[in-house]
Amino acid sequence: MTRDEGVNSILNPHYIVGFVDGEGCFSITFNKNGTNLPEVRLIFEIELREDDRPILERIQETLGCGRIYRLEYARYKKWRPHVKYKVSNFKDISEKVIPFFKRYPLQAKKLESFNKFCRVAEVIKAKEHLTETGIVRIREIRSRK
Amino acid sequence: MTRDEGVNSILNPHYIVGFVDGEGCFSITFNKNGTNLPEVRLIFEIELREDDRPILERIQETLGCGRIYRLEYARYKKWRPHVKYKVSNFKDISEKVIPFFKRYPLQAKKLESFNKFCRVAEVIKAKEHLTETGIVRIREIRSRK
Repeated sequence: MTRDEGVNSILNPHYIVGFVDGEGCFSITFNKNGTNLPEVRLIFEIELREDDRPILERIQETLGCGRIYRLEYARYKKWRPHVKYKVSNFKDISEKVIPFFKRYPLQAKKLESFNKFCRVAEVIKAKEHLTETGIVRIREIRSRK
Repeated sequence: MTRDEGVNSILNPHYIVGFVDGEGCFSITFNKNGTNLPEVRLIFEIELREDDRPILERIQETLGCGRIYRLEYARYKKWRPHVKYKVSNFKDISEKVIPFFKRYPLQAKKLESFNKFCRVAEVIKAKEHLTETGIVRIREIRSRK
């Protein structure tokens, strides 16, 4: 039986939580923007070796958002191609990713970075990330231990 | 609320499957044994950074077997201590680890190494790993793509 025949592609949510606790990444990034305020982005991503692409497709389908990219770094000879599942659209982060992991909580240390991620999402929702005070607050949330 | 207050330490089995699909390792090892036949061992393990030790303790408790070791490599300066959860006792592998992942199947590429692991467990159960033919068979299972 191949994966296409009879395997349900929707994953058990607890499976996704376990997988993400191991392999997922919740990051808060700042993009420089000339002399203006930096642009704040929340990114949820999982990077795996390319031969594990099908599981990323199933996570994408289960969460109902995000894109999958192929990563190739020709300069590293021994480096096998990787694939990355990435959600960076704020609406998807806010309405799909965050509610999912609030309903099915992370169990390992990754919960800490998820909690910071959620706090920054609140700042963005309130549009405070467009102000200097908001940027300072986000930097503070990000650097907190 | 700290982890000790009110958090159920037993994990949802699907969580463990997701975590192991990302971070677990099923290996078939040969220990040289002088001029005699090599000793075959099946090892299930998960290695994480030390600050993620609590999740290994919960996996250990949920699976009801295995030990946790602290790994420190003083020669790598930048290397933070790791912890390893390891099951190498054949009875535990055969009666706890394998039945668990047969009941809750791995969903990613790791399923392939788990399937080889199970095939070798059958050879060991039949005591064929104590014969030269058995060792050849195990090597063949292990190297199969």
